Amino acid sequence: MEVKSKDWRTLVADKRRRQADSIPKEWLIVTPPESILDVTGVPRTCGLLSEKELEITGTDVVTLLGKLESAEWKAVEVTLAFYKRAIVAHQVVNCLTEIFIERALARAKELDEHRRTTGRVVGPLHGLPVSCKDMLRIKGLETTIGFASYVGNFADKNSPLIDIMYECGANPFVQTNVPQTLMWTETHNLLFGRTLNPHNRSLTPGGSSGGEGALLAMRGSPLGIGSDIGGSIRVPAAFNGLYALRPTSNRIPSSGIVTTLTGQDSVLASFGPMCSDRAGVRIWMQAVLSSRPWLKDPFVERRGWDEDAYGLVEREKGKSLCFGMCWDNGQVVPHPPVVRAMEMTRDALIAAGHKVIDWQPYRHVDLHNTLNATWAVGPEEFTHTTSQTGEPILQTMNPPTPNSSSRPPPPSASVSAYSLWQHQKLRREIREEYWNVWNESVSRTGTGRPVDAVISPVAPYAGAPHGMMRDTSYTSIWNALDYPSYSFPVTTVDIIQDAKKPPHKFLSVRDQKNYMTYDPSIYTNSPVGLQLSGRTSEDEAVIAMAEIVDDALKAFRVKNAAGCQRAKL
Amino acid sequence: MEVKSKDWRTLVADKRRRQADSIPKEWLIVTPPESILDVTGVPRTCGLLSEKELEITGTDVVTLLGKLESAEWKAVEVTLAFYKRAIVAHQVVNCLTEIFIERALARAKELDEHRRTTGRVVGPLHGLPVSCKDMLRIKGLETTIGFASYVGNFADKNSPLIDIMYECGANPFVQTNVPQTLMWTETHNLLFGRTLNPHNRSLTPGGSSGGEGALLAMRGSPLGIGSDIGGSIRVPAAFNGLYALRPTSNRIPSSGIVTTLTGQDSVLASFGPMCSDRAGVRIWMQAVLSSRPWLKDPFVERRGWDEDAYGLVEREKGKSLCFGMCWDNGQVVPHPPVVRAMEMTRDALIAAGHKVIDWQPYRHVDLHNTLNATWAVGPEEFTHTTSQTGEPILQTMNPPTPNSSSRPPPPSASVSAYSLWQHQKLRREIREEYWNVWNESVSRTGTGRPVDAVISPVAPYAGAPHGMMRDTSYTSIWNALDYPSYSFPVTTVDIIQDAKKPPHKFLSVRDQKNYMTYDPSIYTNSPVGLQLSGRTSEDEAVIAMAEIVDDALKAFRVKNAAGCQRAKL
Repeated sequence: MEVKSKDWRTLVADKRRRQADSIPKEWLIVTPPESILDVTGVPRTCGLLSEKELEITGTDVVTLLGKLESAEWKAVEVTLAFYKRAIVAHQVVNCLTEIFIERALARAKELDEHRRTTGRVVGPLHGLPVSCKDMLRIKGLETTIGFASYVGNFADKNSPLIDIMYECGANPFVQTNVPQTLMWTETHNLLFGRTLNPHNRSLTPGGSSGGEGALLAMRGSPLGIGSDIGGSIRVPAAFNGLYALRPTSNRIPSSGIVTTLTGQDSVLASFGPMCSDRAGVRIWMQAVLSSRPWLKDPFVERRGWDEDAYGLVEREKGKSLCFGMCWDNGQVVPHPPVVRAMEMTRDALIAAGHKVIDWQPYRHVDLHNTLNATWAVGPEEFTHTTSQTGEPILQTMNPPTPNSSSRPPPPSASVSAYSLWQHQKLRREIREEYWNVWNESVSRTGTGRPVDAVISPVAPYAGAPHGMMRDTSYTSIWNALDYPSYSFPVTTVDIIQDAKKPPHKFLSVRDQKNYMTYDPSIYTNSPVGLQLSGRTSEDEAVIAMAEIVDDALKAFRVKNAAGCQRAKL
Repeated sequence: MEVKSKDWRTLVADKRRRQADSIPKEWLIVTPPESILDVTGVPRTCGLLSEKELEITGTDVVTLLGKLESAEWKAVEVTLAFYKRAIVAHQVVNCLTEIFIERALARAKELDEHRRTTGRVVGPLHGLPVSCKDMLRIKGLETTIGFASYVGNFADKNSPLIDIMYECGANPFVQTNVPQTLMWTETHNLLFGRTLNPHNRSLTPGGSSGGEGALLAMRGSPLGIGSDIGGSIRVPAAFNGLYALRPTSNRIPSSGIVTTLTGQDSVLASFGPMCSDRAGVRIWMQAVLSSRPWLKDPFVERRGWDEDAYGLVEREKGKSLCFGMCWDNGQVVPHPPVVRAMEMTRDALIAAGHKVIDWQPYRHVDLHNTLNATWAVGPEEFTHTTSQTGEPILQTMNPPTPNSSSRPPPPSASVSAYSLWQHQKLRREIREEYWNVWNESVSRTGTGRPVDAVISPVAPYAGAPHGMMRDTSYTSIWNALDYPSYSFPVTTVDIIQDAKKPPHKFLSVRDQKNYMTYDPSIYTNSPVGLQLSGRTSEDEAVIAMAEIVDDALKAFRVKNAAGCQRAKL
């Protein structure tokens, strides 16, 4: 990546001006005051979108694709509807980076033309607008990953995953915000600023795929592509009420992108789908894996979508599964809404005829620490990136306060390769041990199989005020194991049901602090998600099992609502 | 790995005594004098093996497995025959580390008993003795990888690959010698000493799987397991006239072993089969990949033996393939026997109706250097391994001369992780570029496909005197790319046909030196092998294509022999 020599403030001013210019004046809305926390209703109330555009942007992916295939809806009108809504979202939660309306509409027009003249769709995602995290490269556009120092970094070709999107008939139409360095699970940088959570703007949307999370929660995109090296898909999915998958690291192309920690071959980020409705996750994975992605990227496993694995053929077609419930990470007990989500899920699964067993965290702290050892090399790289422009490296995601001052970066001590290898060696050893622990669970499941999947919190809280999303260990351990993990929404914070509980026996000082700071009113309206994790390369089975869990939860909610109804009668 | 605190010389003496004690006195032979270079005939002439034992040990793997399945031959007699021959081999070329005759015979007896009582074989390798490089762990045995410092390092469980061997019905029966640190393509260490090439004992058998290479060339084992991180299967295969495959790194289990450079996740060794006859390579790969190895090792790709890929379904079933001929590495032109082997292979392929095009080395030097950057971290680890015992780290594979003195190890400068990442980043970039270069060859093949495989030398010479096997770049670039590579024998050095040529235009100082030192008489009787490389995860297709090349060579030799016959008439 070319490093710029201009002052970073000049680069920021230039980019912000160009971004503002890319938005049609007539799409600017009267934005609600900062005190309005829930802005998910703004697209409907702001007046910019027609009824049909509201209908289109409220439609699930399967229906959208059906209407695009039948040409009942044109790609142009679908793209325009989502673009308007994305721009509305951007004005209230600041979620976009690259905005290229004309280009996306031209692409949509081509798709419509193809459909009209051939009578056929281009591919399985024909006409679907797709939002992309600002790491993927689209020819002719800038990719800055939140660094002012990368302004002017125009792509001369597409990332392989973008090529696949085009071949599938999709329409990449916006790029979305990320935190500076990508290595935070919030979304704030000096170039584009901070992205807010649409359900409650006092909360972070999570990160690093936080621009995606916020945009999708506003339904400003029907489907987004995030990436996850320590939780960066699952945290924003959980905090925004979305379905999302972090696939096994070598199944989806991740070459030809802009990223940080480049050259480390140890813990690899994987790109994956994020969506308001769960079918989108499966459809995207089917489309990408069926495109023979290994022909475009030498690092991708030579294995397409496995329908047998999705059909759970080796698990009696999913009739009676056994799930491990991992209630905490052994260090910090989650807040009441998260515990309630776990209990709901457990009860729903039992009601649906499945089994559940408790799953003890096995060396989760050690696993998390092996990743931290890798991240510790980061500052040496970040400094290199920003050295020519003077751009400060953020030391916190906290909003500035009147008394806050910028801290100097930590001394960038050089980590030796040999010492890093010792951590990597430990990680390999724990992966081998974890495999055995999983295998040995066969004695507890009663199914004749080891546990089919493990369900766990995504974080020890249902969301976080800006600057407070600090515990990534719940998600990162699945990256350390390279187990695919599916994040799904369960409930939202309820001030009454999720009232503060009496103190429990604290697992650690951090646990005590986490307990002390809990106040349900902080999290008003916040979605609560969990994650379901299977073993390496079991992506298709993980998708199928997450769908089974989601069905169980839906049935459970209906039954409980009916129960409440009867009780009232 | 526990590091011993005894003096290394004490450990060597102890281990050597125990190794000597493990050999029955009645199996000791009168060894030929050092001046006898070709010792491949010793098993027949030494008098230890019966005619039937000579027949058994001269039998190819397919026939062996057939006779074991039909119980015409018992596992016990097969094991005993190969064990005797292995011990004979050891006495003339010093190829073994762990010797455990009673245990192997007991296992063979169990296999016979199972066959007798059930009428069925245990698995696809029923009764087959298999030799294993001294990295794989067999419960209860020592694994020292050529370090005196590891004497006493007994395994408390099998490596997953050994478990798979047992499940397949194989009988791991000896372990074989390696170079100290494993990071040489020769085979010499302070614990077990130097392994010699049975075809010409003044030459190295190559390494690091050199004990395997020498043992198999003596037919002291029907099938061996080596490992390859930079050429360690292919070099000993080529130097000993064997068939062998270095699979893609994540297809065959490599966890639970003893190795060096532990914790680096960047360039991974892969285990693979080595064999005197080519069917053994395929049969072993089929057996291991069909055993669902991913259930035993979290790092293994979840993809079994792919019969369609082996059938070359996507390449018109192999009817008309196009091979790239990569004549040199751009730095050093190979010696005449190697060039002749390339020419023979080219002519044989054309005669068989295939196409050949020249293949230019693309950034091979840069690729090789990225691996060297990784190896540079090694000394820091090796020093740690030997620090308690005082064992010197070998700085050369040269035999000691009257004037040689041991050199001090180089200062173990600490390599920073960040700087290593820059090399790893470059390697990823070249892998992406190489993928494109390969794809773009479609314009030159005339088959409508990119080149199907690339054929290249394994080294710029047909073998090497001890201490002189220094150029690993011909093999290592395929490791850097992680492309599966199959080594196959082509010819042997012929003093007349391979006479020194007039000087060519030298590509480098090293090229000139390589030219100057050539004298065909040095390489008397040395086999000449080449390698065939396909793309990542194309292991099955690579096996199929190597078999096609081998068939073409066999037909070509028959035709040429007939031509010579006619000429004489």
